[in-house]
Amino acid sequence: MRNVVISGIGQTPVREHWDASMRELAVTAVLEAMDNAGIQDADALYVGNMLSGTLANQEHLGALIAENAGLEGIEAVKIEAACGSAAAAFRQAVLAVASGHVDTAIAVGVEKLTEMSGRSTTQGLAAAADADYETAMGLSFVAINALLMRRYMYEYKYEKRDFAQFAINAHQNAAHNPNAMFRAAVSPEQYDRAKMIADPINLLDSSPVGDGAAAAIVTAADYQQTSNSKPISIAACEVATDTIALDNRENPLHLKGVERSTARALKTGGFSQKDIDFFELHDAFSIMSALSLEAAGFSDRGKAVQRIADGEFGIRSNLPISTFGGLKGRGHPVGATGLYQIAEAVQQLRHEAPEAIQIPGAKTAMIQNIGGSGATVITSILRI
Amino acid sequence: MRNVVISGIGQTPVREHWDASMRELAVTAVLEAMDNAGIQDADALYVGNMLSGTLANQEHLGALIAENAGLEGIEAVKIEAACGSAAAAFRQAVLAVASGHVDTAIAVGVEKLTEMSGRSTTQGLAAAADADYETAMGLSFVAINALLMRRYMYEYKYEKRDFAQFAINAHQNAAHNPNAMFRAAVSPEQYDRAKMIADPINLLDSSPVGDGAAAAIVTAADYQQTSNSKPISIAACEVATDTIALDNRENPLHLKGVERSTARALKTGGFSQKDIDFFELHDAFSIMSALSLEAAGFSDRGKAVQRIADGEFGIRSNLPISTFGGLKGRGHPVGATGLYQIAEAVQQLRHEAPEAIQIPGAKTAMIQNIGGSGATVITSILRI
Repeated sequence: MRNVVISGIGQTPVREHWDASMRELAVTAVLEAMDNAGIQDADALYVGNMLSGTLANQEHLGALIAENAGLEGIEAVKIEAACGSAAAAFRQAVLAVASGHVDTAIAVGVEKLTEMSGRSTTQGLAAAADADYETAMGLSFVAINALLMRRYMYEYKYEKRDFAQFAINAHQNAAHNPNAMFRAAVSPEQYDRAKMIADPINLLDSSPVGDGAAAAIVTAADYQQTSNSKPISIAACEVATDTIALDNRENPLHLKGVERSTARALKTGGFSQKDIDFFELHDAFSIMSALSLEAAGFSDRGKAVQRIADGEFGIRSNLPISTFGGLKGRGHPVGATGLYQIAEAVQQLRHEAPEAIQIPGAKTAMIQNIGGSGATVITSILRI
Repeated sequence: MRNVVISGIGQTPVREHWDASMRELAVTAVLEAMDNAGIQDADALYVGNMLSGTLANQEHLGALIAENAGLEGIEAVKIEAACGSAAAAFRQAVLAVASGHVDTAIAVGVEKLTEMSGRSTTQGLAAAADADYETAMGLSFVAINALLMRRYMYEYKYEKRDFAQFAINAHQNAAHNPNAMFRAAVSPEQYDRAKMIADPINLLDSSPVGDGAAAAIVTAADYQQTSNSKPISIAACEVATDTIALDNRENPLHLKGVERSTARALKTGGFSQKDIDFFELHDAFSIMSALSLEAAGFSDRGKAVQRIADGEFGIRSNLPISTFGGLKGRGHPVGATGLYQIAEAVQQLRHEAPEAIQIPGAKTAMIQNIGGSGATVITSILRI
């Protein structure tokens, strides 16, 4: 089993990119990552994407992006795991290089939601849920998360405004990230006044959809490095699943997929929770942040909301989360998100983050990308 | 790099399965393959599928199929490479096991085309082509292949009826395959009278779409085997790409992706063309059979049509093709096809094929699954 590292990263800003096509976004991130790694070629390309087929009737992104990036001929496929597609593509790059069949692989996540034909984004996102047992009942993806948040409030006796700090923290960090979609802080008053989307989830509990692409170059630790930056070790990258529909879970407030994926990653890397310096979690909704912190073993059950309200998990805390703004502040270009998280963690570990959000002395990062309501969970541990 | 084998296979018949859902088909193939391998559990599941998102608004098939197959919790993702999705999923299973991170992986391909909402199958299949430069001009996927066939006829001076033997050979073999969609021979007269689909491609030049699922269990050669059957060695499994749009190719009649993928597979396995006992090629259309035979080095350019008309490539020839009926006779459930091809090759190598189509003494098989018009090509070499 070869040791595997990240030797380069690239990312476009997350925006409504009305003037750039899906392939342009992907190619921009790929070329930036290759330039960052100091390479002109690669053996394989793994493209993470969820909605290009559904919304723009374009599948076959492996060959498409390879050709457009000037990499015609190389091995290339698309990987899909709903909102976890990008980290799932990263996992395949890690396995390919670890196998010895591939020396250098590119993982790129891309999503373009301002280019639609046919279905709406809301319809498309519902494809992450169970079409026969959830979507067919009229549930949207936001509605599924609203059910979870309502149940959490009921079980653990919280008010809606107790969740405000997740959004406030994320936006505070995003303000310093030039690639973030929202670069302004939000106040508790703004949270109170935010438009309701699916009660009790309001606009500031929800990550925004957006367009973007992010990429990482994965290569063997023993393979020639041309990068100017120190390679970042991939200590672990593990995938676990849970039932796709919420109603098949014994306790919907306990994300077994998160628990399993975290446990596998910690075991593979030889770490425990206390070794983690910061945690890029999948804050698609405030409730997902709380449930992730709890199932990953960073908080007792029912306590995560209290703890962030008490000032934990901020950029200067013992366990910062969403350090570049997370899905909430940076934006959530669905099938690209997992590689934004990885690129940001690499920036932290290289000490290349903007000063206000750089975590001093950060050595070990946990990154978690989730597909659906916790049905697919990819947990990576990176280390400098 | 661990040596990797196939220890079990499973497949549903290819039919219009109006009474079985997509997940039921996939689970049937997975459980049959696990039973065939004599295993109760696995570490990872790779699902090949092209159109479930586009046609049925169900993505996230990794978690969905894992849960429904009783494998909740295991690593699971979907792999997409248009019509090459199933073999691309097989390739990921091979890499995962070769890496040492996974001991036993399941690759399953599934497609359900009788369950549609929104787009038609013709619209969905067009997603294999370039949406901006081909589909936007009104080209369907059949039309793209019709352009290729017309050009071949012009360049090499063939008549349309010269292609008849591809369909006749495929149907002759399919007649003996209980899982085939079409189990009746066709005559030259039937070919002449067949309905035109996209001139010069008629109904008998076209593989039929259908529903189905096929699976293979991939495990390390040094890992405990419980199967009653002898494991089949995966001597090679290689992916190569070409431009997605035809008009970007120097010579559209030369499938560079096929040439590259075949060369890589032969090199990895340490074989040359003359070592191959039979060739399961991707006969989505008659013209693809001809172009594949030529680009894979089994025929001079412009000669494959003449050679099959002269009686080569039949079941008792030196290089049988489409031995279980191919895409033409067995049917082409798009994202499942590559694993049907692999399951059939395993049946041949185990000497478990029906007598009329069993190739005596077959030891080395080449299997080729293609996405789009040759843009993604996965070539496997299996050996007993």
